[in-house]
Amino acid sequence: MKFVRFGERGAEKPGVLDDEGKIRDLSGVVDDIAGDVLTRLDSLDIKLDDLPVVEGSPRLGACVGRTGKFICIGLNYSDHAAETGAEVPPEPVIFMKATSAICGPNDPIIIPRNSKKTDWEVELGVVIGKSAKYVSEADALDHVAGYCVINDVSEREFQAERAGQWTKGKSCDNFGQTGPWLVTRDEVADPQNLGMWLDVNGKRMQDGSTNTMVYGVAHVVSYLSQFFTLQPGDIISTGTPPGVGMGMKPQQFLKAGDVVELGIEGLGSQRQDVIADS
Amino acid sequence: MKFVRFGERGAEKPGVLDDEGKIRDLSGVVDDIAGDVLTRLDSLDIKLDDLPVVEGSPRLGACVGRTGKFICIGLNYSDHAAETGAEVPPEPVIFMKATSAICGPNDPIIIPRNSKKTDWEVELGVVIGKSAKYVSEADALDHVAGYCVINDVSEREFQAERAGQWTKGKSCDNFGQTGPWLVTRDEVADPQNLGMWLDVNGKRMQDGSTNTMVYGVAHVVSYLSQFFTLQPGDIISTGTPPGVGMGMKPQQFLKAGDVVELGIEGLGSQRQDVIADS
Repeated sequence: MKFVRFGERGAEKPGVLDDEGKIRDLSGVVDDIAGDVLTRLDSLDIKLDDLPVVEGSPRLGACVGRTGKFICIGLNYSDHAAETGAEVPPEPVIFMKATSAICGPNDPIIIPRNSKKTDWEVELGVVIGKSAKYVSEADALDHVAGYCVINDVSEREFQAERAGQWTKGKSCDNFGQTGPWLVTRDEVADPQNLGMWLDVNGKRMQDGSTNTMVYGVAHVVSYLSQFFTLQPGDIISTGTPPGVGMGMKPQQFLKAGDVVELGIEGLGSQRQDVIADS
Repeated sequence: MKFVRFGERGAEKPGVLDDEGKIRDLSGVVDDIAGDVLTRLDSLDIKLDDLPVVEGSPRLGACVGRTGKFICIGLNYSDHAAETGAEVPPEPVIFMKATSAICGPNDPIIIPRNSKKTDWEVELGVVIGKSAKYVSEADALDHVAGYCVINDVSEREFQAERAGQWTKGKSCDNFGQTGPWLVTRDEVADPQNLGMWLDVNGKRMQDGSTNTMVYGVAHVVSYLSQFFTLQPGDIISTGTPPGVGMGMKPQQFLKAGDVVELGIEGLGSQRQDVIADS
């Protein structure tokens, strides 16, 4: 199934897509697509035909709520590592984005004050459904609720030239568009074989596939769980394929007025206006 | 005032200390020491004598709930930077700890599986009370609800020898003892002049003061707010003075059976048993 969260920011309601792609209001069944609801998505008593259709075109929020950890894997596509001049790391590189960066799939990219190098990254997002600690790679996917599209928006100067640790360039407000849908695991036959793309102003910048991911989803979930407990609602953004602005010659970054569109096969697409912070 | 959260993990109730140091139950006044309650701590209608005394010695939880961001400042004491062989950074170094690492002040330090280098760090914690974005250093402290003690427990091999980015060694479960008290800002005359200490098995390891902090609280709050919105309940752990195990010759790390005690002037103290993960 494809779950969504719709409505004003901070007051999103849960929904689910019907066979025609219309949003059905789930708020009579669950309070949110979040927390322990993620653990029991399979067993929710959903009769699609009985749920009210949501009229109009409401804003979509991030497809999962109350995320505790927003974990990213760095340099996880061999060809992206090459374009940034970095080696493929011997084990996964972890960094955190602030959860306050999470926003809806079509919310604007906000260029922070004093930014010169705001960049894009289409990524496969993995949403944890069941707590995971010291899980094996064989069992790891049992802890995954589903998948989504993420734009891991990144300010390269903040990330790399402003004194240590990437988190500074990864955590700005609206630097984590998440959704449109949380697609449950049963609908994604092979998370390591999904086409993914990103356009800026209609020009294709990233055109890749999760089949060039260095450390796959099961490995990453198992690996992270050796360090800390993954909890329902945690999001893992698994890295980006080639084609980011930082890797171009000459480099190219976002400016107010640009339009970014991105998507992953079977997981839907996002569209963002780029605006300057006020 | 000094606010606490007491009770079983995940089900803590809010409390406040009376003049005798007894915990008074605040759950009839607020639901938690968290979220927008932090914005209005000054104006809560608290009549201490009317609040029930909490009997016995309940477990204390982290002194603030629903933390969205657990932000740390690295190498923020010049003498600590020196002991680790690092330069004082030209601007604050930011990294994130997982919020799932946050626990009560006297909860055990859990040595993760495969850890060889679990270390201690007494730190001044700053709890955000009011949202902050692009705030000036002059206005920054208006956004602070109060202060607390934090043990920024750190696994040095995970942090520095396991492929990039410190967060991996900073985010293990129970790597962030927080409390005992959230001491409101009005009770801390000068956050840049607080003695701080940490003992392992009764031996003094860290004996410092916030007066050797490189980037002070007001600067750090203002600085962080240039990158993202600080929200009520966010915690900033402001760095550690010298005396960590990594900096000793020979290096010394924690082992099961050790006892760690630490405190900061006016903010109370913590005591942790060190245990191995099961």
